[in-house]
Amino acid sequence: MTLDPRTPLGVLGEKALLRHIRARVPAAPGVVVGIGDDAAAVEMAPFALVTTDSLVEGVHFERGSAPPRLVGRKALTVNLSDIAAMGGLARYATVSLCLPAELEVGWVDSLYDGLLGRAAEAGIGIVGGNVTRGRGAIAIDVTLLGDAGRLLLRAGAKPGDRVVVTGRLGASAEGVRLLAEGARLDEEGRLVETGVWTESSADGLVACLRAQLDPRPPLALARSIAERGLARAGMDISDGLSSDLPEICSQSGLTAIVDADAVPVDARAAAFERARGGDPLTLALHGGEDYQLLLAVGPDELPELEDLARVWGIEVSAIGEFVDGEAGEVRLRDAAGERALAPGGHDHFRANPA
Amino acid sequence: MTLDPRTPLGVLGEKALLRHIRARVPAAPGVVVGIGDDAAAVEMAPFALVTTDSLVEGVHFERGSAPPRLVGRKALTVNLSDIAAMGGLARYATVSLCLPAELEVGWVDSLYDGLLGRAAEAGIGIVGGNVTRGRGAIAIDVTLLGDAGRLLLRAGAKPGDRVVVTGRLGASAEGVRLLAEGARLDEEGRLVETGVWTESSADGLVACLRAQLDPRPPLALARSIAERGLARAGMDISDGLSSDLPEICSQSGLTAIVDADAVPVDARAAAFERARGGDPLTLALHGGEDYQLLLAVGPDELPELEDLARVWGIEVSAIGEFVDGEAGEVRLRDAAGERALAPGGHDHFRANPA
Repeated sequence: MTLDPRTPLGVLGEKALLRHIRARVPAAPGVVVGIGDDAAAVEMAPFALVTTDSLVEGVHFERGSAPPRLVGRKALTVNLSDIAAMGGLARYATVSLCLPAELEVGWVDSLYDGLLGRAAEAGIGIVGGNVTRGRGAIAIDVTLLGDAGRLLLRAGAKPGDRVVVTGRLGASAEGVRLLAEGARLDEEGRLVETGVWTESSADGLVACLRAQLDPRPPLALARSIAERGLARAGMDISDGLSSDLPEICSQSGLTAIVDADAVPVDARAAAFERARGGDPLTLALHGGEDYQLLLAVGPDELPELEDLARVWGIEVSAIGEFVDGEAGEVRLRDAAGERALAPGGHDHFRANPA
Repeated sequence: MTLDPRTPLGVLGEKALLRHIRARVPAAPGVVVGIGDDAAAVEMAPFALVTTDSLVEGVHFERGSAPPRLVGRKALTVNLSDIAAMGGLARYATVSLCLPAELEVGWVDSLYDGLLGRAAEAGIGIVGGNVTRGRGAIAIDVTLLGDAGRLLLRAGAKPGDRVVVTGRLGASAEGVRLLAEGARLDEEGRLVETGVWTESSADGLVACLRAQLDPRPPLALARSIAERGLARAGMDISDGLSSDLPEICSQSGLTAIVDADAVPVDARAAAFERARGGDPLTLALHGGEDYQLLLAVGPDELPELEDLARVWGIEVSAIGEFVDGEAGEVRLRDAAGERALAPGGHDHFRANPA
């Protein structure tokens, strides 16, 4: 069936949309029954990981500034990041969509371009789905199943362990600011609008916008770290370092001390932030959506972890240490001394009360 | 922490809401890591079932007429029905909520009363969750994992198989009409408003409202039928007989002929519908949300299936047969002759274009 991509879903209808989606989803290894029955049937290891995360229009993305293909990629990526941060290998996903009736089917097709492309890259099968008419915002809910290896939990850090992060922080949060300033990527992640900035900032704009719209968590490195037992605790940074580090501290019964100078701030994000008169460190500490790893690493394991990260071409930074103290507390240390670091990450309910 | 149930979520905040929910979810068998890490870790059989289904305010329920505890029960029930209709045993659920910031935490607590109560009845663990601020309607997305036994697929019906349904049809759709007419149940499923009807209709009102707000699919019977191989194909009736039967026909490459007189119309729903001047058969054929089983049963298996259903106290009706013919077609036979039965079930996008 050839379908005009501008057909509104309200005209197409739910069953036709489901048939259309189903026809696009390929078979995948381990999938015994895929989309189209009451439930999917899949082969699993005796021990499975499950996670669920959503992207909601107006909260996580805006229809006017996020190309739907990239929204689809990110909807899967944020879940891939969770499975990897547990030490697992992602296998199967279900996708539940809540869509307004006036939305054009072409938008859903581009979303699925992104979902299917990211699924192919990650070697996972999309095995189930659901579409519902919503009254307003688009919501994409993905549940991801994975095989568990050696688990990497949030609990388990010991006093003296180093606080380690992968990559550089702040670019994704900077991407949100750049989108608000009119900078835009197209479906393929190419720069099409520079917003308030000039062409001379093009490389930095692309890097920060991609970090926000099409993040690339260090999935393979996460699994390798878990397999080799190189970290005692770990999670991904989704809400921001200052919000996520207290989780490891709280579940491990420890305090963490972070050296301000050691926090790896993304250089391109820092340049934009400084030009704006803002503070790059604040962005890196509180920005969120970095989808990098936050780890508790024993001092003896640190060299091996650094070697492993080098193999994958990923930077790692030791930014502080875990110490005995109040469970869940994080302290920031700089030239001026040491003070409590309050969680400043994203709180969707409070940040933008409806 | 004692929490005023009237606290709006926008005041409470996302992290506090997650902590509050997490504190309420009990441990469950097979759950190695529950809510609170990057993903849950659960024990699984080598072969797993996965399904996902949502309830969205304004589409599946109205805040003013559906008590949140019953919304929570139903959000799980519709997924339990899918796993059972595949022949599986439900094990673990994840719950993803999209909630407006002005919603009071008491509403979420009542929703969880229902989710947790239904989970306890069904012996499943809630292992993961997610909350996001939405811009308008409440959405509850549940993904359910189950152990697969002998699968009961939609494909597999043979010519000569009988079309069999469990229970009686139409009460749930009648419940929607009664809600629109002002009839109401409270959180416990007790009648508190009769709407346009009188107290003399109380029993019928309760039965139809409960069928809509707190459906009880024949979960154990479904699994027994699958285990014993008493049906060659099967699914649950969620969109309505006229929409769901074509699915079995289409996936089995057959036509089905339904005898109008044999369709088991719920007597209480029929009484309301007749009083309103409507047609009870139309309600039973097209109403939807019955969450009964629709099966293809070999003529030799029918007596054993009837015996088994009697053990569970569930009515079964043979309402027609599968025949060679156009794949996916359903024909209705009555005294006036035989004609094509067009799918008239719920299409959320087309029924109520935004």
